Amino acid sequence: MFESAELGHAIDKQTYDAEVPALREALLEAQFELAQQSRFPVIVLINGIEGAGKGETVKLLNEWMDPRLIQVCTFDRQTDEELARPPAWRYWRQLPAKGRIGIFFGNWYSQMLQGRVHGEFKDAVLDQAIDSALSLEQMLCDEGALIFKFWFHLSKAHMKARLKTLKDDPQHSWRISPLDWQQSKTYDKFVRYGEHVLRRTSRDFAPWYVVEGVDEYYRSLTVGRILLEGLQAALKAKKRRNTQAHVAPVSASLDDRGLLDSLDMNLALSKEDYQEQLATEQARLAGLMRDKRMRRHSLVAVFEGNDAAGKGGAIRRVAGALDPRQYRIVPIAAPTEDERAQPYLWRFWRHIPARGMFTVFDRSWYGRVLVERVEKFCEPADWLRAYSEINDFEAQLSNAGVVLVKFWLAIDRDTQYRRFKEREATPFKRFKITEEDWRNREKWQEYREAVGDMVDRTSSTLAPWTLVEANDKRYARVKVLRTINDALERAFERD
Amino acid sequence: MFESAELGHAIDKQTYDAEVPALREALLEAQFELAQQSRFPVIVLINGIEGAGKGETVKLLNEWMDPRLIQVCTFDRQTDEELARPPAWRYWRQLPAKGRIGIFFGNWYSQMLQGRVHGEFKDAVLDQAIDSALSLEQMLCDEGALIFKFWFHLSKAHMKARLKTLKDDPQHSWRISPLDWQQSKTYDKFVRYGEHVLRRTSRDFAPWYVVEGVDEYYRSLTVGRILLEGLQAALKAKKRRNTQAHVAPVSASLDDRGLLDSLDMNLALSKEDYQEQLATEQARLAGLMRDKRMRRHSLVAVFEGNDAAGKGGAIRRVAGALDPRQYRIVPIAAPTEDERAQPYLWRFWRHIPARGMFTVFDRSWYGRVLVERVEKFCEPADWLRAYSEINDFEAQLSNAGVVLVKFWLAIDRDTQYRRFKEREATPFKRFKITEEDWRNREKWQEYREAVGDMVDRTSSTLAPWTLVEANDKRYARVKVLRTINDALERAFERD
Repeated sequence: MFESAELGHAIDKQTYDAEVPALREALLEAQFELAQQSRFPVIVLINGIEGAGKGETVKLLNEWMDPRLIQVCTFDRQTDEELARPPAWRYWRQLPAKGRIGIFFGNWYSQMLQGRVHGEFKDAVLDQAIDSALSLEQMLCDEGALIFKFWFHLSKAHMKARLKTLKDDPQHSWRISPLDWQQSKTYDKFVRYGEHVLRRTSRDFAPWYVVEGVDEYYRSLTVGRILLEGLQAALKAKKRRNTQAHVAPVSASLDDRGLLDSLDMNLALSKEDYQEQLATEQARLAGLMRDKRMRRHSLVAVFEGNDAAGKGGAIRRVAGALDPRQYRIVPIAAPTEDERAQPYLWRFWRHIPARGMFTVFDRSWYGRVLVERVEKFCEPADWLRAYSEINDFEAQLSNAGVVLVKFWLAIDRDTQYRRFKEREATPFKRFKITEEDWRNREKWQEYREAVGDMVDRTSSTLAPWTLVEANDKRYARVKVLRTINDALERAFERD
Repeated sequence: MFESAELGHAIDKQTYDAEVPALREALLEAQFELAQQSRFPVIVLINGIEGAGKGETVKLLNEWMDPRLIQVCTFDRQTDEELARPPAWRYWRQLPAKGRIGIFFGNWYSQMLQGRVHGEFKDAVLDQAIDSALSLEQMLCDEGALIFKFWFHLSKAHMKARLKTLKDDPQHSWRISPLDWQQSKTYDKFVRYGEHVLRRTSRDFAPWYVVEGVDEYYRSLTVGRILLEGLQAALKAKKRRNTQAHVAPVSASLDDRGLLDSLDMNLALSKEDYQEQLATEQARLAGLMRDKRMRRHSLVAVFEGNDAAGKGGAIRRVAGALDPRQYRIVPIAAPTEDERAQPYLWRFWRHIPARGMFTVFDRSWYGRVLVERVEKFCEPADWLRAYSEINDFEAQLSNAGVVLVKFWLAIDRDTQYRRFKEREATPFKRFKITEEDWRNREKWQEYREAVGDMVDRTSSTLAPWTLVEANDKRYARVKVLRTINDALERAFERD
């Protein structure tokens, strides 16, 4: 894998000096075009052998291009805000917006390689990290991102010579290597695991470029040209690659019996039973949220459901159990400008709670496979791939100790009609009913199918869907609270 | 100050039950109207005596209103990201957007009171904290925010009884008081300093409301009504209060000699001198940024100047001295949607660097007193008050160890004309020149006046302006670098 990057590639100064001016101009032009189009972000990952010119190259790129449109991100020690959340959170918060270039120094690859080289974990965990990296990159590319992955390489002999030079140079001797590169064992391990990682993560949508770092001119020109050609091609392409959507219908139930039909919509609670059970479950939730074991977890609850199914009321009963300092409710509406400049899941990652905290999403990332699918706000290819992106996302939450509960509040058409009419008649509820609600109602059957597919494709033991029979609001509220409590208890027991 | 809040105010359950439904409806209506208008944010500060019902009231407000449009923020222990920045940063990052309600629990008042009560500082420092709080609130109100400040009060006897009840109640005994309220000395001090703070910070634009907390019904209804009436009044007012702009012209130089005329625009460097001095200053900057003393500081550089004055080139020479991991360049363009939903300075606070780091602003918060003034994008009242807001902002940075350097790059009209023409003729520079640049050029004289006022009103030893004679790019670049280096050195020497 690294053979041709140990040949001692070099070019002479004359050739370099002759080529650079045109390259710089072209890079600047491409960068400007990128900003003008603001159609996709560029993510440059910098990895490789210590001393192979990673830092110098990043510095040079900032000199060649307009540094105002580049953000260089390092991911060294995690801050305590990062440590309190799933590992990927720190990368999401630093993603460049469309039209910008983000250079990720010390990214997910350096993290997995350092961990493996230092023996913090075994190959199986390394392979899991590789899988996560691939899913992340696949998703970023599907969202339009252009990813460059550079591996700066040096043969062992060259590395040793280079580290010696750096050490003797007062301008550089202050640097501290993140790994103890002086040991030749470190180099061997790094190359061995590096090869494994590169082999598994070089894909058509985000290939690795291995660049020999021994000669400054060679390495700079190589990186510059790869960037330029990649950028130009992506800028010219009318639309970024889009996978062909699968043609078979997603929901293929021949007898027209859906998941929602299996619900017993007559389930109800008497007023007395409700008051007693509500009080019990609210006290239980308050207790669980104060439990010491909660410090290792956070809680995320997703509320989806038919219009007028009583999401707001259920959320209020959940909130009512708690100290307002423990939770945050995030209503999901149309994305803002900043959010539109980022991948779809970005605006949900923003609100992932720190350990000990609770976020309620009033509507959620499932919008893509519900309203966006039914209303055709996105292509079938987009909502089809959303299922697996969502599963990956939720697996990351779950692996990091986030307890995730997801509710679909279901009512039947007659109940919805009655509630719509009621809302129109009540002064302080009028704002809850709009023309759009009546229009959505026309698409009852399409939503029904979309919900069925959603549950089939995204319900798992890690993050199960709970269908809530919500014709009776009392029954629904108690079921929601009880489900959250059971999920928290199960998580605590597993600890 | 607290006399009438120690009378033992109470109302009976019947009255309470009769009043609450209408109050809730009205609050919901007002809250919805607030969200619809999205014209201003509401900030609710919660302070007062331990055990006086602060937490319960916040919980109740979340039950009465739509909790999806309320965010409750606590400011307990600072995270390390917050500790690395000026103290106010943590408040700015949590400000509610227009249309939303933010409840600040443990805000700037609790911080200053706890510090004083615990003897961490003396009265003089408390008074400084009060001044900062007032400036912040004044600014927020001028930007349209509606601020409610609630002080929940209890007489000493009531407090003692209340704490005892809480302790004996298993539902509450887990709570830990932030101050050792069991000591009667603590109460006395808290009340004494609280009175001082309230007296000094109760202003027309953000008055304090002292609410006796002993009776739950009384306290809840009082807070609910104050909120409702305040909200309704603010929603009805066509425009939030706006101070009358001072009528006298700001720049009143009768002989038409401005600050910019005093510059020697012939200053220049030969190519050899330039290369030598540039290399020296770049090495000096690289060394200073690596200096251990830099860990206590961060660096902010502001670049303003005539169009085509060479800001970009100067910034590149500064960046060229550094490891790209140490700095971030923030180009300031039109604000995004998220930014427009916040006070003017919010989008600059976002980018204030952590200790050890460097942010370059390519254009800055001075836009308000330059382009927005000249192009009449805002009212005279707005840009007139911006001077003092900016001075406050910069004083906060400076007090927190931020080294701030501000450059105005000045060229004369002929030089600008020549550079515009040159840009039009160079393919990869064409994007740097637009119709707008030519239009701005027509307003040369107005900009000249605005710059003079800006420097007169915002240049101080804490944050001096440096006027840079930029007809000769070489001279300008070296002067910029040298100025930054001198500022860093001075800051290090003062440590």
